Amino acid sequence: MNVSLGKRILLASRPVGEPKESDLRIEDMPVPVPGPGEMLLRTLWLSLDPYMRGRMSDAPSYATPVAIGQVMEGRTVSEVVASHLQGYAPGDIVLSPSGWQTHALSQGRLTRKIDPSIAPVSTALGVLGMPGMTAYAGLLDIGQPKAGETVVVSAASGAVGSAVGQIAKIRGARAVGIAGGPAKCRYVVDELGFDACIDHRAPDMAARLKAACPDGIDVYFENVGGAVFEAVFPLLNNFARVPVCGQIATYNASEMPAGRLLTSQVTRAILTKRLTLRGFIVTDFAARHGDFLRDVSAWVREGRVRYREDVVDGLEKAPRALIGLLRGENFGKMLVRVAAPER
Amino acid sequence: MNVSLGKRILLASRPVGEPKESDLRIEDMPVPVPGPGEMLLRTLWLSLDPYMRGRMSDAPSYATPVAIGQVMEGRTVSEVVASHLQGYAPGDIVLSPSGWQTHALSQGRLTRKIDPSIAPVSTALGVLGMPGMTAYAGLLDIGQPKAGETVVVSAASGAVGSAVGQIAKIRGARAVGIAGGPAKCRYVVDELGFDACIDHRAPDMAARLKAACPDGIDVYFENVGGAVFEAVFPLLNNFARVPVCGQIATYNASEMPAGRLLTSQVTRAILTKRLTLRGFIVTDFAARHGDFLRDVSAWVREGRVRYREDVVDGLEKAPRALIGLLRGENFGKMLVRVAAPER
Repeated sequence: MNVSLGKRILLASRPVGEPKESDLRIEDMPVPVPGPGEMLLRTLWLSLDPYMRGRMSDAPSYATPVAIGQVMEGRTVSEVVASHLQGYAPGDIVLSPSGWQTHALSQGRLTRKIDPSIAPVSTALGVLGMPGMTAYAGLLDIGQPKAGETVVVSAASGAVGSAVGQIAKIRGARAVGIAGGPAKCRYVVDELGFDACIDHRAPDMAARLKAACPDGIDVYFENVGGAVFEAVFPLLNNFARVPVCGQIATYNASEMPAGRLLTSQVTRAILTKRLTLRGFIVTDFAARHGDFLRDVSAWVREGRVRYREDVVDGLEKAPRALIGLLRGENFGKMLVRVAAPER
Repeated sequence: MNVSLGKRILLASRPVGEPKESDLRIEDMPVPVPGPGEMLLRTLWLSLDPYMRGRMSDAPSYATPVAIGQVMEGRTVSEVVASHLQGYAPGDIVLSPSGWQTHALSQGRLTRKIDPSIAPVSTALGVLGMPGMTAYAGLLDIGQPKAGETVVVSAASGAVGSAVGQIAKIRGARAVGIAGGPAKCRYVVDELGFDACIDHRAPDMAARLKAACPDGIDVYFENVGGAVFEAVFPLLNNFARVPVCGQIATYNASEMPAGRLLTSQVTRAILTKRLTLRGFIVTDFAARHGDFLRDVSAWVREGRVRYREDVVDGLEKAPRALIGLLRGENFGKMLVRVAAPER
């Protein structure tokens, strides 16, 4: 009897600084056979996200790291190949935590069916998935933008940032993006409809940001940290809200950067300006998932929230693509097309 | 005709670093005569508070500074001497923003009558006044302590801190204070009923604090900043709340101290631990004043919230007393007894 072969990517070693391709190892594996109560999933799309850098490290964080020799964690859109699990049939498309592999067994845990009639199924990993939900909950529940306020978001062309700015616009706020390079900035303004976008690589970034925010900043949706945070911080208005979602500028740092902004300056400003800085991860807002799907699905359908995908083909391209993502080389939601659907 | 003389204290120069007595100047003044719609107030008690250091400086803050040559700002408990203002009669005791002077005219702005039957009238400047309200609103509305959680408060023997810990206890939380020196720490535990109190002057302060908080810290009520903040920060639990009320450790600093805690470490922890840091000043919570007076008056009457006053006699002692307050030399709510009531 022939055993079909699939592929998987394991964490080979913990990166020091920027991950190297050799920190991840691709290997063949037998395609597993589902037992009772299980189904076999075939990965169509693998999502690459900045949080994955944290899972490669054993520094204390909100989630346990991937063990050395274990399959890298990741959300996928997968097709049911065979099912002994009630409610799932071959051909169904599901969101699954399958990880970086071509096939996976599932007992349905953390899995939900995707309706392909709403939008392309890959959006379940982007604007209608975790990144979109992160933008929705962080902006609306923590940022609480009001009409006429100024919302600034970093990594503005990315999966989370692009949704943040567009939702801010829907709420009547002014949206100012910060992104890497003129092409991304043009896209953020011309395609996504932000009011302005600042290139964080410009040497006079702080001055440009100030000019783009003549009334100061009421909400800063923080994705990156580092120099961008330092440019934003002095512009925050009284009672400004700062949802802290990511710190991608420091994810590869083996030592935290000192920067020019002192902790005492931050706490002094928190006091005198009555700022709110609040960290969150998307699962803290699970109760809002129904609201999110209802609102953002409608906005996507109406063309009020647009998205862009950056796709590489083939699981073997995933390590290089993750390295690029952490450098800001992607342009839009980073996805690996692992296979085409069979049906 | 004889003109009666009073005294007032003016801001003579903006302090650099710690204020000097010569930054304030006492002078005689004619006691003013109330016109139509005015009343003449005689100051009984002047409150000294850390925020006054900010008013002596022209650095940007939430309030305009006192101008050079202007009477120093301050809340007082005063007695009505003569009144052409409806609703106020000689002998009434009022809370007033009279400033550092023996007499003031008032048109009733920011003034309210005090009922001397509730508690000694000086408490309108302490536990039943702005410091008590600061503790109440900051702890309950931002800190939101739950039963069994650990609440840490710095400047724990002071007007705000002592109320914070006692209200935390009433809410069923564990209260740990941080104060300067063994006498204050004994008072905080033995008289106020905190579960523990750490002397911030102890060389092993951070280790002692950790030992006193075996389950970590859920709420840190921040009054001081600096090294105390650095000792607290690593002990914060997931979802901890940090009401930022004061930064007294840095009020005299002409340059902000660098400290050992990097801004990037702070923002990283805000993200991974989903912390909330929120600054406030008491007037942000004006809508809660009725709740505060009802609850804390009852708790004081029942002996569940106790307070201590540190009194100096005579307006001329105010400059030295403020300098001492900023050094942490006071023990309890700092008050200047300016005069005894006539009636």
